[in-house]
Amino acid sequence: MELINGQKITLGTCYYPEHWDKNLWREDLERMKECGIEVVRIAEFAWSKIEPREGEFTYEFFNKFLDLAYEMNVKVIFCTPTATPPAWLTEKYPETLNAAIDGTLYRHGGRRHYNYNSPKYRELAKRIVEKSASHYGPHPAIIGWQIDNEINCEKSEFYSESDTAAFRIWLREKYNTLDTLNEAWGTVFWNQTYTDWSQIYVPRPTPSSSNNPHQVLDYTRFISDSACRFAALQSSVIRKYKKPEDFITTNGIFSNLDNHRMREESLDFITYDSYPNFAYCRDRFDQKEDSLRDRMWSRNLMEVRSISSNFGIMEQQSGANGWNTGMAAPTPKPGQMTLWTMQSIAHGADYISYFRWRTCTVGTEIYWHGLLDYSGRDNRRIAELKEIHKKTQCLSELAGSVYKAEAAVIRDYDNIWDSQLDTWHNAVEWQSQLSIFRAAQKTHTPLDYVYLRETTTIEQLQKYKVLFYPHPVLMSPERASLLEQYTAQGGTLIIGCRSAYKDMNGRCTTDCLPGLLKPLTGTDIPEYTLVSPEDTPPLINWDGQLLEAAVFNDQLTPALPNAQVLALYENCYYEGTPALIKNTIQKGTVYHYGAAFTEQAAEVFLEKLDLKTPYEAHFTLPPQCEIAPRTKDGTTYYFILNYSNTPAVICLPHQKKDLFTQTYAQGTITLPPYGVKVYQ
Amino acid sequence: MELINGQKITLGTCYYPEHWDKNLWREDLERMKECGIEVVRIAEFAWSKIEPREGEFTYEFFNKFLDLAYEMNVKVIFCTPTATPPAWLTEKYPETLNAAIDGTLYRHGGRRHYNYNSPKYRELAKRIVEKSASHYGPHPAIIGWQIDNEINCEKSEFYSESDTAAFRIWLREKYNTLDTLNEAWGTVFWNQTYTDWSQIYVPRPTPSSSNNPHQVLDYTRFISDSACRFAALQSSVIRKYKKPEDFITTNGIFSNLDNHRMREESLDFITYDSYPNFAYCRDRFDQKEDSLRDRMWSRNLMEVRSISSNFGIMEQQSGANGWNTGMAAPTPKPGQMTLWTMQSIAHGADYISYFRWRTCTVGTEIYWHGLLDYSGRDNRRIAELKEIHKKTQCLSELAGSVYKAEAAVIRDYDNIWDSQLDTWHNAVEWQSQLSIFRAAQKTHTPLDYVYLRETTTIEQLQKYKVLFYPHPVLMSPERASLLEQYTAQGGTLIIGCRSAYKDMNGRCTTDCLPGLLKPLTGTDIPEYTLVSPEDTPPLINWDGQLLEAAVFNDQLTPALPNAQVLALYENCYYEGTPALIKNTIQKGTVYHYGAAFTEQAAEVFLEKLDLKTPYEAHFTLPPQCEIAPRTKDGTTYYFILNYSNTPAVICLPHQKKDLFTQTYAQGTITLPPYGVKVYQ
Amino acid sequence: MELINGQKITLGTCYYPEHWDKNLWREDLERMKECGIEVVRIAEFAWSKIEPREGEFTYEFFNKFLDLAYEMNVKVIFCTPTATPPAWLTEKYPETLNAAIDGTLYRHGGRRHYNYNSPKYRELAKRIVEKSASHYGPHPAIIGWQIDNEINCEKSEFYSESDTAAFRIWLREKYNTLDTLNEAWGTVFWNQTYTDWSQIYVPRPTPSSSNNPHQVLDYTRFISDSACRFAALQSSVIRKYKKPEDFITTNGIFSNLDNHRMREESLDFITYDSYPNFAYCRDRFDQKEDSLRDRMWSRNLMEVRSISSNFGIMEQQSGANGWNTGMAAPTPKPGQMTLWTMQSIAHGADYISYFRWRTCTVGTEIYWHGLLDYSGRDNRRIAELKEIHKKTQCLSELAGSVYKAEAAVIRDYDNIWDSQLDTWHNAVEWQSQLSIFRAAQKTHTPLDYVYLRETTTIEQLQKYKVLFYPHPVLMSPERASLLEQYTAQGGTLIIGCRSAYKDMNGRCTTDCLPGLLKPLTGTDIPEYTLVSPEDTPPLINWDGQLLEAAVFNDQLTPALPNAQVLALYENCYYEGTPALIKNTIQKGTVYHYGAAFTEQAAEVFLEKLDLKTPYEAHFTLPPQCEIAPRTKDGTTYYFILNYSNTPAVICLPHQKKDLFTQTYAQGTITLPPYGVKVYQ
Repeated sequence: MELINGQKITLGTCYYPEHWDKNLWREDLERMKECGIEVVRIAEFAWSKIEPREGEFTYEFFNKFLDLAYEMNVKVIFCTPTATPPAWLTEKYPETLNAAIDGTLYRHGGRRHYNYNSPKYRELAKRIVEKSASHYGPHPAIIGWQIDNEINCEKSEFYSESDTAAFRIWLREKYNTLDTLNEAWGTVFWNQTYTDWSQIYVPRPTPSSSNNPHQVLDYTRFISDSACRFAALQSSVIRKYKKPEDFITTNGIFSNLDNHRMREESLDFITYDSYPNFAYCRDRFDQKEDSLRDRMWSRNLMEVRSISSNFGIMEQQSGANGWNTGMAAPTPKPGQMTLWTMQSIAHGADYISYFRWRTCTVGTEIYWHGLLDYSGRDNRRIAELKEIHKKTQCLSELAGSVYKAEAAVIRDYDNIWDSQLDTWHNAVEWQSQLSIFRAAQKTHTPLDYVYLRETTTIEQLQKYKVLFYPHPVLMSPERASLLEQYTAQGGTLIIGCRSAYKDMNGRCTTDCLPGLLKPLTGTDIPEYTLVSPEDTPPLINWDGQLLEAAVFNDQLTPALPNAQVLALYENCYYEGTPALIKNTIQKGTVYHYGAAFTEQAAEVFLEKLDLKTPYEAHFTLPPQCEIAPRTKDGTTYYFILNYSNTPAVICLPHQKKDLFTQTYAQGTITLPPYGVKVYQ
Repeated sequence: MELINGQKITLGTCYYPEHWDKNLWREDLERMKECGIEVVRIAEFAWSKIEPREGEFTYEFFNKFLDLAYEMNVKVIFCTPTATPPAWLTEKYPETLNAAIDGTLYRHGGRRHYNYNSPKYRELAKRIVEKSASHYGPHPAIIGWQIDNEINCEKSEFYSESDTAAFRIWLREKYNTLDTLNEAWGTVFWNQTYTDWSQIYVPRPTPSSSNNPHQVLDYTRFISDSACRFAALQSSVIRKYKKPEDFITTNGIFSNLDNHRMREESLDFITYDSYPNFAYCRDRFDQKEDSLRDRMWSRNLMEVRSISSNFGIMEQQSGANGWNTGMAAPTPKPGQMTLWTMQSIAHGADYISYFRWRTCTVGTEIYWHGLLDYSGRDNRRIAELKEIHKKTQCLSELAGSVYKAEAAVIRDYDNIWDSQLDTWHNAVEWQSQLSIFRAAQKTHTPLDYVYLRETTTIEQLQKYKVLFYPHPVLMSPERASLLEQYTAQGGTLIIGCRSAYKDMNGRCTTDCLPGLLKPLTGTDIPEYTLVSPEDTPPLINWDGQLLEAAVFNDQLTPALPNAQVLALYENCYYEGTPALIKNTIQKGTVYHYGAAFTEQAAEVFLEKLDLKTPYEAHFTLPPQCEIAPRTKDGTTYYFILNYSNTPAVICLPHQKKDLFTQTYAQGTITLPPYGVKVYQ
Repeated sequence: MELINGQKITLGTCYYPEHWDKNLWREDLERMKECGIEVVRIAEFAWSKIEPREGEFTYEFFNKFLDLAYEMNVKVIFCTPTATPPAWLTEKYPETLNAAIDGTLYRHGGRRHYNYNSPKYRELAKRIVEKSASHYGPHPAIIGWQIDNEINCEKSEFYSESDTAAFRIWLREKYNTLDTLNEAWGTVFWNQTYTDWSQIYVPRPTPSSSNNPHQVLDYTRFISDSACRFAALQSSVIRKYKKPEDFITTNGIFSNLDNHRMREESLDFITYDSYPNFAYCRDRFDQKEDSLRDRMWSRNLMEVRSISSNFGIMEQQSGANGWNTGMAAPTPKPGQMTLWTMQSIAHGADYISYFRWRTCTVGTEIYWHGLLDYSGRDNRRIAELKEIHKKTQCLSELAGSVYKAEAAVIRDYDNIWDSQLDTWHNAVEWQSQLSIFRAAQKTHTPLDYVYLRETTTIEQLQKYKVLFYPHPVLMSPERASLLEQYTAQGGTLIIGCRSAYKDMNGRCTTDCLPGLLKPLTGTDIPEYTLVSPEDTPPLINWDGQLLEAAVFNDQLTPALPNAQVLALYENCYYEGTPALIKNTIQKGTVYHYGAAFTEQAAEVFLEKLDLKTPYEAHFTLPPQCEIAPRTKDGTTYYFILNYSNTPAVICLPHQKKDLFTQTYAQGTITLPPYGVKVYQ
């Protein structure tokens, strides 16, 4: 494939050839090339340019653009336009529209107002993709395809009548009989038993918005399935017509969507839309500096590389952001565009495409600035892009290298989706997710996400010495067994409170807790409680270190011979009860921690398990800097990123090669605000 | 009747025999009995267990349970299942559903989504009740019936088409002619005059949500009437079939419902669902300790005993609370379950039924913990229950005794409902209600609520030396006359600002204020004002004590010969104007206080009227303790309840019998956190 | 005309003769006259009094009132009743109702629930106006007509089907072809291209509420046009029947409405409803004293006098305000009613009508107090009114005089409406509008608003030495040209950041910024940014004075020969870049200021341009006092208004005539709280 090929870091941009203007197009492409841009993405949202009226297809507009691009040696990623159906379509076929939970239809005038399950929309979407792919597929300027745009962005819930019809089919396939469904959803509670499939709907308005949680969990799975099937419908068509070497991708990772499955079924690799400047929006800025702000996007990139270890950035922020209705943030300061580009590369991006070449002068996104301002003249950001281009040229050798971590956090979609609909689950989940990430960032400890899925293998887990699985609330026998194998063969597993008390339907187990995980943890939980808002927080005393027992406390007891109490609760009515138990399983170890994780608790685990600050011998870094290692063929490349608006002083005890200058450095070095270094 | 019979305090629990499992049932009932539980409530929400399909009735499931319960000598309260219609019902008859004000229907999937006025729902509800009552009525295991479940919980507003149809009939009966209705609702304002009954609806969306307040007041009365009629429909059916000694009740007191009328018409006594742990919800915890937190539930119990002086608790909290969507609170701490049980008994409960035996493992209420956790094994709360059982056995002699207070606060539904729809009324009402309750609690002064109703007699009022009627905004000649009799015969009445300026339709009187109360108060109000948010609060100087003149100030003038100025305003432009006037009427006294009551003002009234701390000679108590006296046959039993998480030191100058230990105590005694003592 | 005739200040009141009660009416009119009231407004909302049933007209009720008024020499303003259609109307013709954006209809029961575009409503409204005007028009008691009531109050957005139908016609007239419309709305973005007029609607629900901003801007213009046409429909009918000397007006200025056009087309002058006590509402009171509170109503009066330099107050607050649903505020304190009356007169009101004579005892507005309370007896406010009457008699000579300012702020509806829908525009707009007003108020610098409209002439601008046009985001060549003329002929123009980057459709220009204003400002803007929430504010150093560069910063460069850099940015990454540039154009000057205006910045401009405190030689005033000059025939009358609840000490170096006392004053004078003086 052209982009993710291990040969170099490629630059691109998003281009909107709105009107036929060959001179402007030529001038734009020429200027891009001067900046090092080799690829443009075009045609997302452009349905009406190809099918201006139902059944009337015209190809001339993009023919001209593609021919020019080919002539000028600019490569093209071509998009399917299904994110924005034309006005004629939704006006004639309102059944294609998405709806709010109360049935109110979302109408023409924004974007992503369609549903995935309307037979008519699937028919018309398939046709426009088929027409586009069959016509443009052979064009030599094209190197790849983007499906739709930001699938599940804006709305990731769908309540149209088409969705109800499809949901019933999906449920019949899953459960076969209503008895099985009634049992899985626990409909005996509140007399919800269904006696006919026609009584079942996607969630609808109920008093106190208290819909059946097992139904909502299945509904979320159904939404993900619908999105994946919609992507697969398109990719299967494109595959018929695209040149063999061309890739298929889509951009962004959004909620209620199994991105890993979508990648496997429909995409060659994922691309991500990275907008770290959201952290500086006027209406959502977090004054607390330790919120990490734009550095939190490294967490998003952890998600992305769990899908594709090498990936692309389809939209990399290059200007101020905002719609006319909100999200107002300042213009990136000098250096920030470089910083964010390098943040993406540090985590595995081999393709960086800036959003967008020119700033749009009309519509909702008039404040979403591109590389150029409205006037199109050269500016500071274009100058910075040229510097970035020089720097990425120095990084060619690390293309294809992958981010390297010895510890990972396990995630899985079932628990993510359950935590969305369950406030108790949600509270522990976010407490721990953010704490572990922040502790790893501030101690300069590389960290991965690994997703537990049906296809996950023991080898995928064994890449890591230590796995955190903070709150595996939903647990299946298969997953418990895989984790047991991982541990028995020498892995270390850390689980927190509230683990394994639900089955995969979200129903609570009647086994003693932690249910299916008891053989791993060697623990029993005779009692548990939320931390009362009235109390000063309970503490966990681990070898004299006092950790706050955050949010929820399982009161543990050793239940298997190897289980060993490591820490006790203090400062609460269950003072003296075990709060941390370590169990040994053959060659491995399981830690069961009774609470949600604070940043401090996560750091203590990293320290005790000898994971913390692995590159201490190579770099002394202040907390404001991230370190990100990429390795390839035995060589490690270190990205040092300064997210602060103040200089950062780092120290290299040993000599290292600075890839940007191609010189060797040692000793004390000062990074400017937003400065980046890449060392080998 | 079996439960409220003056013989003993009975314990029960809520049981959900979801699946036919005789061994599990037998084991559960056996274990309950070991804990002292003698009664189970079953079958609320169980419509589909009896009528799985329209018109198909099956009784076997509960036959088996009732037979087993009878065999094991466990008594049963049987519920009607009308709170949760089956899926087949609402799918086939959507006219049975309740709706939001904009017409959006509430759908199957939660609970309480039906309306009271659909002829079809009334028909089907009546039939299921008739089938249940006629079949199970004679069963010897049954001792009583619960109608529906938590009537008017979740939603106490109804906007379906059936409600509009019934509202028109209700209005025709009340007003006879449209002219009378137009006059009562003041429709001349904003040209709202109705010329045909078909123009009248339940409240509907209007700009600025500014519906006619007189219409809304009548609508609220109509909602209450609808709920009462729905309960009466059921009770009249049950009465035909139940054994003569069996009782009828329902659980909970909710808004927009005349619970006193419902009790009189349909119930033998009321039961209440007491969940004081709501005070410790993570999302609504009040950091201010003087908010009284769980002690505020004593105010709810005041309401309950104004309906039935002896009553039951149908659902007494026994575990952590929460739905998956919210209301998350910690597990009750050791002692709290005992505390809350004794709080209920202290206020007149003779039956305590814990919610619930096992914690539900499915559905919305998976975090609403019962006595047992998901696993069903014995736990700390079961152990505490066994201790509670021992304690309640020591309290048998006080069963049938009633709470005793010398002062009461008058309430009435018309003013409560007006205050809900009128922000000016609301502001003074809550300021005073909470202040008077808190002052009574903190000074250990027992206090009652007494409801002014059509049937209220002078004798009912004369039980009290002093009556507070803080803001009787709506006033009728009948009520004024009753209050005048009470006063003339020696009672003391305290009224606050804003009194009697509306008639019973909520229209303002054109008489000089305080309108119908002027003969009682002996006052005139030439001017009045809200307290400006700009100002430091005006003060009322009463014999040198400076009281904050909260929220609203009537500027008073003596208007009858006996009227005597007691206090003047200070620190405002009406400084020097009378703020408190005392009027003498034959043997009695009326105080007219120009402002809403602060806690301090309420305390000063209690002190000056010699009501404060009546048991001072018997007990010295810290503010954190409540005292609640129950009397019977000349004997008084004193509950001392420590709501704090710290110990409380109390002092008994004289020897008293400790009912739990059956020993005599005197001098300084330390109650542990959440500790309770009952002395005779 | 009777009221705005330059002869005297006239007093009136709003009267609601709800029921036929000649004695009450006579008594009321008698009492009014004792207070100096000569005019009553009647019959708004009184549709059913004239057409109780469809097509049945009856005139007797108001005949009687008008005859009585004439007999008693009280003049009458008669209203059309279209703000509140009768129940029979909206029940029979629901297409006349307004709707929320999701289509939910607003129903009978409030007010202003109709839409302007329903053919049926226009037909019935026209008929009731015709019937009223033709019948009552000749009556000698009548002196003028009020159209509807508070047009666009409550709701200024309309989403009914009638509105969509009318919007399509309006757009066809404006754009002629769909191609033109598609271009104007930038529908190429997000594939919004319309291919049939039937695809176009008023804004409807979209995901993220992200409707096309150019469509919304046109929609707002359409709403304004609809309201203006509705007013014109009525005025054209009234004109046919009214006596020649009678006037037509309407009351209030509300949003989404070109009040200037409505005045020109349909009204002889505007009247305003002035309720400064809103500043003291319990739920919206601003603790910060420098928020100006009730003094902010002078800003509203600036708007009013930009429409009619002499105007009336149709509803002047005379009591506490509030509906039963909110807006609760205290009773005006002694003096405030006088203060607010004089505030109105100070800005050009020659007619003051108090809302209302009696306080309504029924309906939503029971807390909106009039001069009399519910009982109707004399009170403190009636006494204050009698004093006001004496004072206004002393002011007869200034009737017809007009407010006098040397500086003005330019406003225009296009920019106001764009700023409503565009959060970036909104942020700078309000920052500057409030700052400039406050700076003028606190420095006692008179200030006008002048509206830039199609008909605006150079002469209208030349009345002012200096014009602020803080953020003319939308700019047309015609407007730029007018501003250039103004400058060239000697005017001084100050513009702020973000100027002229949009065309009149709200599309961004691709010219270098500031686009069409570049010939005026002589500047170029190579770069710009929102101020980051992370940063301490950038500063602008102007001759050593450090001004906060608020909200948004244009980084300026001189681009024409006369352009001269006056100030540079500091404390940011563009430190040293020009922040203020002065350009000279023939006899005039343009200042281009790179940021939004703070109060301090506005004050520095006033000072440097020699506008600040023009009456310094005549009055020394504390900041809490407003000065407002009215001039006529070479004489200036100065209103000094003390908005504070504390006394204000002012100083008159020279002798001035005190109009209230008709004596001469000099030296130090103390105004009581809320005190007012008028000097000549």
